[in-house]
This record gives sequence, C-alpha cells and structure tokens, in this order.
Amino acid sequence: MLIVHKYGGTSVGDLERIGNVASRVAKAKEAGDDIVVVVSAMSGETNKLTEFAKHFSENPSKREMDMLLSSGERVTAALLAIALQEKGLPAIAMTGRQAGILTDDSHTYARIESIDPSAMKKEIDAGKIVIVSGFQGINSDGSVTTLGRGGSDLSAVAIAGALKADACEIYSDVDGIYTTDPRIEPKAKKMDFISYDEMLELASLGAKVLQNRSVELAKKLNVKIIAKSSFSDAEGTVIAEETEEMEAVLVSGIAVDRNQARVSLREVSDKPGIAAEIFSKLSEENVNVDMIIQNASTDGTTNLGFTVPSSEIKNARGVMESFDHDIGSMDFDDSVCKVSVVGVGMKSHTGVAATAFCALAKENINIEMISTSEIKVSLIVSEKYAELAVRTLHDAYNLDK
Amino acid sequence: MLIVHKYGGTSVGDLERIGNVASRVAKAKEAGDDIVVVVSAMSGETNKLTEFAKHFSENPSKREMDMLLSSGERVTAALLAIALQEKGLPAIAMTGRQAGILTDDSHTYARIESIDPSAMKKEIDAGKIVIVSGFQGINSDGSVTTLGRGGSDLSAVAIAGALKADACEIYSDVDGIYTTDPRIEPKAKKMDFISYDEMLELASLGAKVLQNRSVELAKKLNVKIIAKSSFSDAEGTVIAEETEEMEAVLVSGIAVDRNQARVSLREVSDKPGIAAEIFSKLSEENVNVDMIIQNASTDGTTNLGFTVPSSEIKNARGVMESFDHDIGSMDFDDSVCKVSVVGVGMKSHTGVAATAFCALAKENINIEMISTSEIKVSLIVSEKYAELAVRTLHDAYNLDK
Repeated sequence: MLIVHKYGGTSVGDLERIGNVASRVAKAKEAGDDIVVVVSAMSGETNKLTEFAKHFSENPSKREMDMLLSSGERVTAALLAIALQEKGLPAIAMTGRQAGILTDDSHTYARIESIDPSAMKKEIDAGKIVIVSGFQGINSDGSVTTLGRGGSDLSAVAIAGALKADACEIYSDVDGIYTTDPRIEPKAKKMDFISYDEMLELASLGAKVLQNRSVELAKKLNVKIIAKSSFSDAEGTVIAEETEEMEAVLVSGIAVDRNQARVSLREVSDKPGIAAEIFSKLSEENVNVDMIIQNASTDGTTNLGFTVPSSEIKNARGVMESFDHDIGSMDFDDSVCKVSVVGVGMKSHTGVAATAFCALAKENINIEMISTSEIKVSLIVSEKYAELAVRTLHDAYNLDK
Repeated sequence: MLIVHKYGGTSVGDLERIGNVASRVAKAKEAGDDIVVVVSAMSGETNKLTEFAKHFSENPSKREMDMLLSSGERVTAALLAIALQEKGLPAIAMTGRQAGILTDDSHTYARIESIDPSAMKKEIDAGKIVIVSGFQGINSDGSVTTLGRGGSDLSAVAIAGALKADACEIYSDVDGIYTTDPRIEPKAKKMDFISYDEMLELASLGAKVLQNRSVELAKKLNVKIIAKSSFSDAEGTVIAEETEEMEAVLVSGIAVDRNQARVSLREVSDKPGIAAEIFSKLSEENVNVDMIIQNASTDGTTNLGFTVPSSEIKNARGVMESFDHDIGSMDFDDSVCKVSVVGVGMKSHTGVAATAFCALAKENINIEMISTSEIKVSLIVSEKYAELAVRTLHDAYNLDK
C-alpha cells in the first residue's frame, strides 16, 4: 500500500517530536508500506518569521512573505529525512517544487493547479521514503507560493490524489473526529467513520484536525483521509465517501459555533430585489453572512433573518441602518450560538428535526432560528444554552452508544 | 552602473542590521546605480540548523544538509526585499535557483557551473533591486546545493561576472585589506588597491573579508571586488587586475600564519622518487603540506624541509617515522610561524628578499626556512618572533607611509 502521512506543526514542534515522527514513519515503512510524508514547519516558526517581516512592514509583499515562510517546512523536511537516514532507512527530502506542485499566482493563498508526481514516483520506486515540504509550491514563473491556512493538509491530500495513494493519514494532537466537543459533553465518542459531506458540515468539530478546503479537495479527488494522533496509537477517524453497503448513521455529530450573531428584520418592504440589495451591500462591506432565513410574505412585507460572525455585528448594524426606510424594525443579538445536527442518514429519514425540537423544548430552550439542509439541521439559540443544547441533542440521538 | 553588493552574516545579524543594510542599498539605488544584493544567512542561523541536524546524526546526508542550510539565506533575502519595498523601492527576492545558478552535484561544497542571468536581467531592466539568496544553487537534478565556506562571496562574484557588473562590493565588519594585521602592527594602513595575485598570497590578511576561492573566481571572471565595511562609510579596498599604467607597489603587505609546524629531514637518501614517495604518503594520510624546500644534493644525500598545519604535525611525524631507514635524522618543530612579504612590484625589482633578511638579522631573528615566488617571500621563524618580525618588515618596506 502507498500511504501519505501528514504531520502538523505541533507534531514536529521540537527536535524530540521530530524524532518521534521518524520512529512512527519508520514503523510504517518497516511494516511494508510505501510512505510519503508531508510536513509543516515546527510550531512557532511561522509566527516568528511573520513577526520578523512585521518589523519591516505592516503590509509586506505577499510574494516575499511566501519565500520567507516556505523556509520553515524545508527545515522540517530535511531534518526528518536526516533522522530517518540515521535509522538506516532510505529517505529523501523534497521542496514543493521538487515534488512537482504547481500553483496559481495567488501568493499566500495559492491554489494547487497540478502535481507532476514523476519525481516522487521515481524515488518511491527506488524504495525511498519521500519527505515533502508542505504548504508550498511554485507558480508558472518559478516563484515560491504558499497555500494559506491548513496548506500542508492540502499538500498532503493533493499529493495522495496525484499518487493514487491508498490513504492520507493526517496526524495532529487530536486522535480523530468526535460526535461533539468533548469539553462540552464528556460522553462524546470518537467516530470510526464519517463521510466527506458530514465532515464539511461538522467543520467546527474538525477545526483542530483539518480544514474544509482539504476535505473538499479530498472529496473531489476521492482521497481517503484518516485523522490520527501523532501522540498515540489510537485508530483515528476515516473520512471518505459513504458507501451504499454501509447503513448510513442517522446522525453523526453535534457541532456548536459560538461565534454567531443574529440579525432579525421585521416588516421588510416586499419589493423585488430588496434582499439582493441588502446582501450585496453586506458583501461590499465584507460582512460574512452565514444562515439566511426568509419567511413567506404576508400583507406586502416579510420577515428576514440572518447570522454573521460576532465580530462583524457592528459593521452589519451600520449597513442595515442605511436601509431604515424599507424595514419596519430591526433586532440585533450577539449572544446567540448555532447548534447543528449533522448526519447523512437524515436524507432518507424523517423526524430528525422533530426529535431536536422536542428535546430542546423539554429543556425550555427557545429556538430563535431554524435552517435545514439535506444532511444538517442548524438551530440558533441563546448562547447561554450552548452546552445544555449540545448535551441534550447528543443524548436525544444516542450518540454515546 | 550596475553594482553587486554582498552582505555577510554579521552585516545581517539581526533585524536592526538588516534595516541598516536596506538603508545602504536604498542610498546606492537612489544615487542612480542598478543594484543586485547577495545576502548570507543571519549570523548564528547556520550554526543553529547544523546543531539541529547533529541532534539526529553525526554524519547527516549532504543533500539534506543543503536543503536545510539553504533556508537561512532565503529568510534574509525575503526580509531585505520587504524592508526595501517598505521604503518605496521596487525589490524582488530570489533563491539561487531563481537567479539561475546551476552547480555541479557536490553537495555542501558545490562548484558553480553556470549562471543564466536572464531572470535577474529582466528584473533589473524593470528597475528593480534584485536580492539573491547567497551560498546556494541547484544541480542538474533540481536538488538544492550549497557552495561551502565563503559561498555567498562566490555567489556574489559569479553573479557580478554573469551580469558584467561594474563592481562587486563585499561588505563585512572590516573596512578593507590592511598592509598587515593591525592587532600586531597598529601602524598598519588600509590599502586602496591590491591585485588579485597579491590578495591570494596575502590570504591571511583577507581571511575575515573574503576567501581565496572568491578571489580566484574574480580573477578568472575579471570582476572588480571592493571590500568595504557595512558599519561605516569608509572607502574600502579595491581588488582587481594590476594595470600597466599604475606603478606597481614594491611590497603591498606582510602576512603571518601562526598555524605552521616545520619538519626538517637531514641526510635523506638521494635515490630517485624518494620525495615523491614521502609526499604521496603524507597526502594519503590527509596531511596538508604547505612550503617544501629541498637543497641540492651533496655526497648522495639531501636535506628536505616542509611545513604542515600545527594540528597535523603528529600525523606527519607518524608518516615520517615509517621512512626511518632512508633518512639520517629528523627534526619536528610546531612552534614556528610563516611570515610572508607580498607585492607585485617584486617581479621587476631585485633586493626585496635581501631587505627582509637584513631587517630580521638586525633584530637577531633567525630565519629557519626561506621560500620565494614571483610576488612573495615567505620566511619560517620561531613563533615567539611572530609580532616582532611582522613589525620589523612592515617598517623595513615603509608600509605605514
């Protein structure tokens, strides 16, 4: 089997930890698999270099930031290769360029355009462990680019896709994806399996493990991700396409996002294009809108609600006040949270939403907004109920079983 | 004019110093010149990374060391470009690869094979200051290589050659080349000009400024070097081919090398090939021989003398003792030093050596060995006379005038 491993900044945070990663990779290689390893910079390194740049400029050129920051992953890759060679294992360190990673020109948040895996393949065929500097590539000019937040995960998934690897193991300090945040619900269980779509909807549960960009790419390239801890031998969580044979779990997990503020607009003039106008203006002012709910119109006016990140509520209020002649009344609340119930099983089962409503009602938790998709029910409730709502829903769907 | 600047590790040792370099480069650019800057890693950085590698292996792979160590120069180049951009000057940072530097495959001490200056030229023509990461290139496989000690100087000289630059200014914490070591002779004077050949012979005087490999390359490519301080506005020393119009100075400077040990062999069998045998054996044992002197043979035996670095005298003694049946007596002395009088003017003047012998005799300094070349007289004397010999010779040739 060909397995891509990816180790993040915490997993390679100091020399001892790099040594531990070397042992882990050596064990996998000795078990008979071909291994490609993608590494991040040692934790703290990227921040240090960013501080260096800030010493000279508040707004340093992105092209030069990319050359600066990409140095950290090279250091880790070279050190890991040296550690493996010392164990008698053939290993070769590669930069993003050497691994054949070509990106577009968007410095600091480049997109991978293509990967030419021939150089990696040649080394794998020669029996070597290939260590690739994550987070980086080059553009068509040959300038170094970086992929932005979570970039090493993207490198790993893209490389796994290009090499048609059997799996992409993403190592972090968390041993998988849980049915909800264990700090809120100690009965939260680690999932053995979750589909790409569920993972995307449960982003907040996976935030420390991997970002949505990587999950989206894995889905597109059909790369099986396994989220594992680099500090234990626990099994981890497989993230892949759900298969038909597998009976879909009704509900996979409960996510909570506290970083939400609610805007409610009542008696909005129901003239054509008013919603378009409101959301265009918000977008121009860089307000990120999450949920949007509009009820059917009654007597020429409608009610409209949406949520924005808490930090943007002030900005959103400014925008809304410029519409005051078209809106009856407005209400802003930045002490709400969004609780989401996610599961591919919902697609074919009714009553999932009703279970949530009943369970919350029993605890006297008022639901302020509701939004549903094929595999998700999201509820806006007062932030003070965040933990109670999560535990109540976790119980209601028997996720600890 | 097109000027290449090179700043070493001390000159870019911290953020403040990188800021100072930016000011200096900005001034040169604003004076109307086109500028290419070659930078080293921040001082201490290369040692730190080497220590990291030693944590994993006493003998890390050279290819991976090159990837590791080459990261330091990239960081400096990116930071300097950012600092210049903040001053409103167009600047672009380049890796060795981007600057078109192709080397052979000898990792950690690669030789530059060719430079394709087209990418640098394009940016210069666009009015940009080009900042190149020194010390590095890539080989024909695309692997990163480094050039060994003094590598950034080599990068700078080679780039100046490829771009047909008007001068290559090498900045360090010393403001030029002196007629002798000012710590020994406070009357030592900074030279305005020195020829490549003199510089090569005076290596010890320039050791802190630039290494012989760079001077040799500059001579080959006919690149005018100017050795300057990055901490002052002093004029520096020009290192170039001597011109016929310029009246050659009789003696340029006095160098001293304390790291010398003398081996004297008396009554060596004068059979053919004995010298060849001795020096081949020394070479096999990695003993570096410097001066070699052999007198004309008398009555079937000859006297042979040579010097080696002090640290290798024990090794040399071991080798010599294996020849004992062919050698009458041997004498080893590791408390000697080599004092050298250098000047292109010697070529056409007689009496330079005689002046040295007389001056030393007057001070009762015994000369143990003598070796002369077209532009150098080297004398082995007891190490205790090192300073006195240097001052005496400095005076004898009026170098403080």
